[in-house]
Amino acid sequence: MTVRVEDVRQAAERIAGRVLRTPVIEVRPGLIFKLELLQHTGSFKPRGAFNRLLTAKENGELTGQGIIAASGGNHGLAAAYAARALGVPARIFVPVTTPAAKLGKLRTLDAEIVQVGSEYAEAYQAALHAQEESHALLVHAYDQPEVVAGQGTVGLELLEQVDGFDTVLVAVGGGGLIGGIATAIGDRAHVVGVEPELAPTMHRALGEGRPTDGSVAGIAADSLGARRLGDHAFASVQDHHVQSVLVTDDAIVAARKELWHDHHLATEHGGATAYAALVSGAYEPQPGERVVVVVCGANTDPGTLS
Amino acid sequence: MTVRVEDVRQAAERIAGRVLRTPVIEVRPGLIFKLELLQHTGSFKPRGAFNRLLTAKENGELTGQGIIAASGGNHGLAAAYAARALGVPARIFVPVTTPAAKLGKLRTLDAEIVQVGSEYAEAYQAALHAQEESHALLVHAYDQPEVVAGQGTVGLELLEQVDGFDTVLVAVGGGGLIGGIATAIGDRAHVVGVEPELAPTMHRALGEGRPTDGSVAGIAADSLGARRLGDHAFASVQDHHVQSVLVTDDAIVAARKELWHDHHLATEHGGATAYAALVSGAYEPQPGERVVVVVCGANTDPGTLS
Repeated sequence: MTVRVEDVRQAAERIAGRVLRTPVIEVRPGLIFKLELLQHTGSFKPRGAFNRLLTAKENGELTGQGIIAASGGNHGLAAAYAARALGVPARIFVPVTTPAAKLGKLRTLDAEIVQVGSEYAEAYQAALHAQEESHALLVHAYDQPEVVAGQGTVGLELLEQVDGFDTVLVAVGGGGLIGGIATAIGDRAHVVGVEPELAPTMHRALGEGRPTDGSVAGIAADSLGARRLGDHAFASVQDHHVQSVLVTDDAIVAARKELWHDHHLATEHGGATAYAALVSGAYEPQPGERVVVVVCGANTDPGTLS
Repeated sequence: MTVRVEDVRQAAERIAGRVLRTPVIEVRPGLIFKLELLQHTGSFKPRGAFNRLLTAKENGELTGQGIIAASGGNHGLAAAYAARALGVPARIFVPVTTPAAKLGKLRTLDAEIVQVGSEYAEAYQAALHAQEESHALLVHAYDQPEVVAGQGTVGLELLEQVDGFDTVLVAVGGGGLIGGIATAIGDRAHVVGVEPELAPTMHRALGEGRPTDGSVAGIAADSLGARRLGDHAFASVQDHHVQSVLVTDDAIVAARKELWHDHHLATEHGGATAYAALVSGAYEPQPGERVVVVVCGANTDPGTLS
């Protein structure tokens, strides 16, 4: 089941008023930031989570059993936030590597928190087992059509907010965001997925012709630490000829520092990964090319920026 | 000489392309943030600095001698930034109390830095003496018509960006920002100046019928630490019936924490002061009232937010 632009449009209607319409800023001619780090809970994830929960509610699948989600941190925050808003309980599985900045916020959201495994994939297996024993709704971090469609609303907003752009740079983990944005934007701009060299899920999937498991490492693993690209994301990035660009951890660190020092945005490493493609030269725009960078996550310990 | 709305409009034309049009975000229904902390150099100050320098350039008053400015930090950053952009040297006088976060940025801007005195007013006296012995242009931190008019462009942008608002909350130090915004907005919204109890320049001026000197203290003194309100600001806030609200240092600290934890904005204490009026209840909106908060400064050590 391929996510269609109609699904993204319906998601936008469904989640309107639940999520923020985040602003854009043109920080120099031709370089536009989409400030999705200002979204509720500090990442784009509530878009997909609300779309999944509200769709399930329309279909009678959201019960008093509530929801279950697995997450490196940001999706858990979003799922718990959405569940609380809709008045259902949430059980969130996170690996023990989830940073304190995310765990601390999660503790404020009334969710039951289960810490298990050393990476997202292990927390996900535990969540799957728990879901089979309950009637709770599984809210996947990236590989459900409603989730991909919800994240795609970022792309619809860009088409409305930015007066002509050629390219959009998007960080890739499990691919929910880039899958949704590629679907929303279609052929109206060039979509580029930016991944850490140490967790290149999309790069590998495009090379091998299908998503495959790989190892997960690097400085952004708490937000971009899926082992493989989601199937729905893969269908979308293939359909829309998304380009793959890899960046080093050093480039991500440098981009994060520059976002703070030059642009006054405190981001997590995953939130700075798309910008790292520009800072490092891994993606070099043509003269006059108008580039949007989706700055997608703020859940960081600001002390690490001092 | 009262600053008129025409002066603000001319300022907007003059500085277009030199400063960023900072975005707004409606973080909940009826609460809008103007994200002026994302401006170049991390505060609104380049608006006034560019208007002063470019006006002087038009009049042949900007020479190879460059500029002199005194500042608690933010205006110095802006003046140095504007001088560098226009290719003239800058000498910036700051008190020894200027935080490392501001001093460090200032050192990257090619300015000559003079640290003198323990508060802004002492650095200003030193700057005045230096200016008398040179042909450099004095760029006041708040009390020149071009500076007030430049800061007022924040207000013009709000009128264009926000679809109807009743009130705008603005932090007050020397009054350049509130004077300009009050002039720009006129009677189209209610303008409220928010000041630390420990540095209430506008409150005192309104009470005594004219700006008078007072002591300066408190946690936001590095950005709101003028001893008295500027004369141009006073004329504007009187003409436009600006309301005065005072907040405690504790309220400023709480507002700054909330801006980070709930809204993902890392601000300095002065940049959180306007929001402190809401957080503390010092300003209580009516039901349905649409309130804009100008979040005006990001130059902080993010480690203090951990």
